[in-house]
Amino acid sequence: MRYFLDISYNGTSYYGWQIQKSGPTVQAEIEHALSKLLGEKVGIMGSGRTDAGVHAKQQIAHFDTEKTVDLVWLKFRLNSFLSPNVAVNDVVEVNSEAHTRFDAIERSYEYYIHQQKSPFVQELSYYFPKPLNIDLMNEAASKLLGTQDFESFSRIKTEVNNFICNITKAHWKMENDSLVFHVTANRFLRGMVRALVGTLLEVGLGKLTVEDFIKIIERKDRTAAGRAVPPKGLFLSKVTYPSSVYSN
Amino acid sequence: MRYFLDISYNGTSYYGWQIQKSGPTVQAEIEHALSKLLGEKVGIMGSGRTDAGVHAKQQIAHFDTEKTVDLVWLKFRLNSFLSPNVAVNDVVEVNSEAHTRFDAIERSYEYYIHQQKSPFVQELSYYFPKPLNIDLMNEAASKLLGTQDFESFSRIKTEVNNFICNITKAHWKMENDSLVFHVTANRFLRGMVRALVGTLLEVGLGKLTVEDFIKIIERKDRTAAGRAVPPKGLFLSKVTYPSSVYSN
Repeated sequence: MRYFLDISYNGTSYYGWQIQKSGPTVQAEIEHALSKLLGEKVGIMGSGRTDAGVHAKQQIAHFDTEKTVDLVWLKFRLNSFLSPNVAVNDVVEVNSEAHTRFDAIERSYEYYIHQQKSPFVQELSYYFPKPLNIDLMNEAASKLLGTQDFESFSRIKTEVNNFICNITKAHWKMENDSLVFHVTANRFLRGMVRALVGTLLEVGLGKLTVEDFIKIIERKDRTAAGRAVPPKGLFLSKVTYPSSVYSN
Repeated sequence: MRYFLDISYNGTSYYGWQIQKSGPTVQAEIEHALSKLLGEKVGIMGSGRTDAGVHAKQQIAHFDTEKTVDLVWLKFRLNSFLSPNVAVNDVVEVNSEAHTRFDAIERSYEYYIHQQKSPFVQELSYYFPKPLNIDLMNEAASKLLGTQDFESFSRIKTEVNNFICNITKAHWKMENDSLVFHVTANRFLRGMVRALVGTLLEVGLGKLTVEDFIKIIERKDRTAAGRAVPPKGLFLSKVTYPSSVYSN
């Protein structure tokens, strides 16, 4: 049987999602917990990687087991076993062909910025006190919509075949005391959201015009774009599947 | 000249507000920063103490100095100098008679509970997964309103003359994924909010009826009330002054 796990995690103390020899990762922690609880070696497959220090409000991962699993029991036991940094929101049986990575149609990310010093979001938001023109940042963000080549916002050493992504949502919004960038696409390149946010901040500061921003997209050259912002403000917020595979 | 500081802090790593020999406190950290920046020994007086591990969205403290102070400069320098756990939201010159403790007319507290495991609020909310009847908790909370003797909710070793408080607000509310208790009074006794919340949770669990809760208030005996909840969910959220003294 195949199962989907709906997971949240605070990435602060992890070397990212994917198993590394150099330090703790979210994938390794969950595989360890599942293997202990099910009494067999269990591997999990996530919808995609997140980098060191990046969080997830919703990550989806799948695993297989032939054991009979009480899903309420498994969720409860996983949440007791896992550290306070990882929460299991749901465990659902799915079709044995369902695949968290290949079947995902959209991923959404959020990037949190606070402009007043706050003692409550140190690990979960980027402190950026300089004044920003949010209208201009939103005008530039709207130029990201559609199917385009985003090589300018991809980490240079990357193994992908092409840099084409279809961005369906990209905007900034004030939420309580945070300025939040929401972006949704069929796929994201390595480091893409943090490079987009860094470049949009330069628009907000008046260092780049919206015209400059359009030219940066067109240049297909990472050195054209702005500096990546720190991982701590970034959250994978939702992974979307066809409802025949998984609805959430 | 006298100045009011409007401060937020994350109390997780402090031995409370008030200076202690045994470990770091918020008051000591701010006095140290002010003394360094103003080049003279500066003491501060808070509107009231908070216990170890308790946070503040808004605490007000005053200090005196005869030096000429650029308030924009001082706020900026304090926020650079203080640890990420303490933020200065405002520095305002006030009348030289204004007193943060004696002039305060009301204090407000909030207590945060989350019922689903969350990796994002570990230090700032109490994880309480058992099902609660919030309507009953609100019915009981309404019995707190008015001027009453709250000895049942005061820590036993306390130096106050009487236990009379006037509670003007006491209710529970769902806010995003949190269940939040809001309480406002002219004064609070030591450990009072945490004892109130602990006892109201017993009403929510069905272990106490609203009638039992009323009798606990009437008994004026701390051993009658429920166990105090942990400090990490508690925030001092607002201190109110006559507008002639300070408006915020």
